[in-house]
Amino acid sequence: MNPRGGAGTAREPGGGAASPSRRAVIGWGGAGVAFGAATAGGATALARPGDDSPPPFDSGAPVPFHGRHQAGVATAVQDRLFFAAFDVRTTDRAQLVGLLKEWTRAAERMTAGHEVGEGAYGGLPQAPPDDTGEALGLRASRLTLTVGFGPSLFDARFALADRRPDALVDLPRFPGDNLDPARGGGDLCVQACADDPQVAVHAVRNLARIGFGKVSMRWSQLGFGKTSSTTPDAQTPRNLFGFKDGTCNIAGTETARLDRHVWVSGEDAAGPAGWTNGGTYLVARRIRMNIETWDRTPLAEQEDTFGRDKREGAPAGKAGEHDAPFLKAMKPDSHVRLAHPDSNRGATILRRGYSFTDGTDGLGRLEAGLFFLAYQRDVRTGFIPVQTSPARDDALNEYVQHVGSALFAIPPGIRDRNDWWGRALFS
Amino acid sequence: MNPRGGAGTAREPGGGAASPSRRAVIGWGGAGVAFGAATAGGATALARPGDDSPPPFDSGAPVPFHGRHQAGVATAVQDRLFFAAFDVRTTDRAQLVGLLKEWTRAAERMTAGHEVGEGAYGGLPQAPPDDTGEALGLRASRLTLTVGFGPSLFDARFALADRRPDALVDLPRFPGDNLDPARGGGDLCVQACADDPQVAVHAVRNLARIGFGKVSMRWSQLGFGKTSSTTPDAQTPRNLFGFKDGTCNIAGTETARLDRHVWVSGEDAAGPAGWTNGGTYLVARRIRMNIETWDRTPLAEQEDTFGRDKREGAPAGKAGEHDAPFLKAMKPDSHVRLAHPDSNRGATILRRGYSFTDGTDGLGRLEAGLFFLAYQRDVRTGFIPVQTSPARDDALNEYVQHVGSALFAIPPGIRDRNDWWGRALFS
Repeated sequence: MNPRGGAGTAREPGGGAASPSRRAVIGWGGAGVAFGAATAGGATALARPGDDSPPPFDSGAPVPFHGRHQAGVATAVQDRLFFAAFDVRTTDRAQLVGLLKEWTRAAERMTAGHEVGEGAYGGLPQAPPDDTGEALGLRASRLTLTVGFGPSLFDARFALADRRPDALVDLPRFPGDNLDPARGGGDLCVQACADDPQVAVHAVRNLARIGFGKVSMRWSQLGFGKTSSTTPDAQTPRNLFGFKDGTCNIAGTETARLDRHVWVSGEDAAGPAGWTNGGTYLVARRIRMNIETWDRTPLAEQEDTFGRDKREGAPAGKAGEHDAPFLKAMKPDSHVRLAHPDSNRGATILRRGYSFTDGTDGLGRLEAGLFFLAYQRDVRTGFIPVQTSPARDDALNEYVQHVGSALFAIPPGIRDRNDWWGRALFS
Repeated sequence: MNPRGGAGTAREPGGGAASPSRRAVIGWGGAGVAFGAATAGGATALARPGDDSPPPFDSGAPVPFHGRHQAGVATAVQDRLFFAAFDVRTTDRAQLVGLLKEWTRAAERMTAGHEVGEGAYGGLPQAPPDDTGEALGLRASRLTLTVGFGPSLFDARFALADRRPDALVDLPRFPGDNLDPARGGGDLCVQACADDPQVAVHAVRNLARIGFGKVSMRWSQLGFGKTSSTTPDAQTPRNLFGFKDGTCNIAGTETARLDRHVWVSGEDAAGPAGWTNGGTYLVARRIRMNIETWDRTPLAEQEDTFGRDKREGAPAGKAGEHDAPFLKAMKPDSHVRLAHPDSNRGATILRRGYSFTDGTDGLGRLEAGLFFLAYQRDVRTGFIPVQTSPARDDALNEYVQHVGSALFAIPPGIRDRNDWWGRALFS
């Protein structure tokens, strides 16, 4: 098996290249290197299948692919995102199952920093390569690939109607929604997170290539900068309004909170939802931010809108970002107050947001905003109550608009090299 | 003056954060810190105004802003790009000059890792902040800001018609061009390159904010991964076809080649072009790549198309990327052969390309490709001859299409803190 990376010559210096890449250590085609245990030069963590604990922060290291839960949910948030939703084109259930198996094996390799396929460049010159090649020489970069199933998959095509969980609802229309169907929905989703965007784009593109003729990409989103943290005590990264938001996010190490608010288990995984045990639900919202208007808004009004101090991210009247907010001291329409669990009967979601910019609209405004990803064990007690009052009353609504929406059931993790995405659903 | 960065609490770990950020070292509002000489924790290089030599590769360090040439051309290529073209809305020459001065001072601060303005968060709560805030706590990240003037600026509005250099031509239409006017042209451009995309987006957005009412953004492009190297002996990064291209690029250290092919001087800087001495010309092309078609093309055909081996990037029949190509051994329509200086009377350009992906088109194909930036002392002896035969004959044309185009004159560098972008042009 070829580790990704080849010749031992100098690499272009820059961003993530501070520690030596594995190419400097392992020659091309190093046949003796065992899968999942490649010695990554400079990497302090190796892929440990079955181990769910977050790796130490080497931005080039692999994140374990196998485990009870899919990686990419509680995993410490990587810097960059590429997200894609697919429509299934085949109506042949066996073809879809075959694709999910093939995707799983390819993801196993890519998240470990390998190319797709074993004969990528040693294969037949008469055949297209198994791997598209643009991540050759790049490290694993903490790549995670997380797959989900949308409500539309559970129609007559694949005889899955009686396996649709009650929690996989059709999201209600919220006040202010201005949703573009071309930016939402989808039978399948793939969330690729990595510290190197080229690694994330490469991964989704190779899954799309494998799925040619069986699935087609419905929409996709590049996220250039994370706005969420799942690392305890870390400062929350800033969104494009310059604010920290989602401060009381669930940390990847808070097992009890994850079990309570994120991972499906017990009664929620009964009946038609039996296959979701260990999984979760993902809401994806594309939120356009009117940054030009925001940028002309006085600081005091910006701070009142969020209910936070801009510099530190502290809740109104407090000193530090992580100080408990005194909700009654905030304006009734401030974002922190309305989105706080105490205003929503404890409803808590795990956030994994990314800023995006996709060029410029016809009016000379930046087409920019927040691609908001929320994980929860049930959207009816998670995103829906969390979003209901803000959608109606949030002062932030003057500056944002939800333009894309999708919901996916995220099946449990891949236990071993015989397991595959959707095994419990399709078995 | 406030250095960017504030509280000393832990930062979210990840990508570019391996070395401590300056926030951990300098408290908020560290009044005694001299501009341009802030002690960046973990940074091995500091901004040294007037020094043009490339900094050592600390991806968080500042790149010197002052010098005979603008940074961002010969500078070792940073990982990420945000590029914007602007239309000038004011017809008042003094307003435009005022804006260029304001932009220069803001760029001086941002490239050094500071916020725009001195009272960003200490200012009046009744006023919008001087800095939009989303780069607060991030390092300088080798940010460069490079400004250019498009042909359309030299019309009657600003009495610049007699200062338009002969070299600032209207680019000819090349065979196969399918240009979208909304993706090309512009009176002004700003190229922001950095190892952290949030830093690049922040910089352009703050210049746009400063220009509100005087300029409006015409188009913009995010580039997620560089495809060019200006570092001697480094491997060239791969494009979205998985190939290394532009291998014989001019290195940032090759002073003689830069003087010959890139920087304007001597007779080229005479008469109306007098203000361009020490500057250069930039061609920007948005090249859509049909990656789905490419991905189904056999390896041998891919390699013949480029005239390179895919794994190493070696020219056909050679072993290493940097081996001199034997052009006659290649297929006559191979990309390397047609674009090589020996096929174009020595025409040589400096490449600074970035891969992009902007969602998905209506046919389920990734809207992805190469944002190609080429620098040269005269496009009539640079890009135009280099592109002429490939546009007609290149085997690659089956897989790519030029959909956006722009040309800008890049004025010389900012010599000191009294200088400003365009001083020689407007004086």
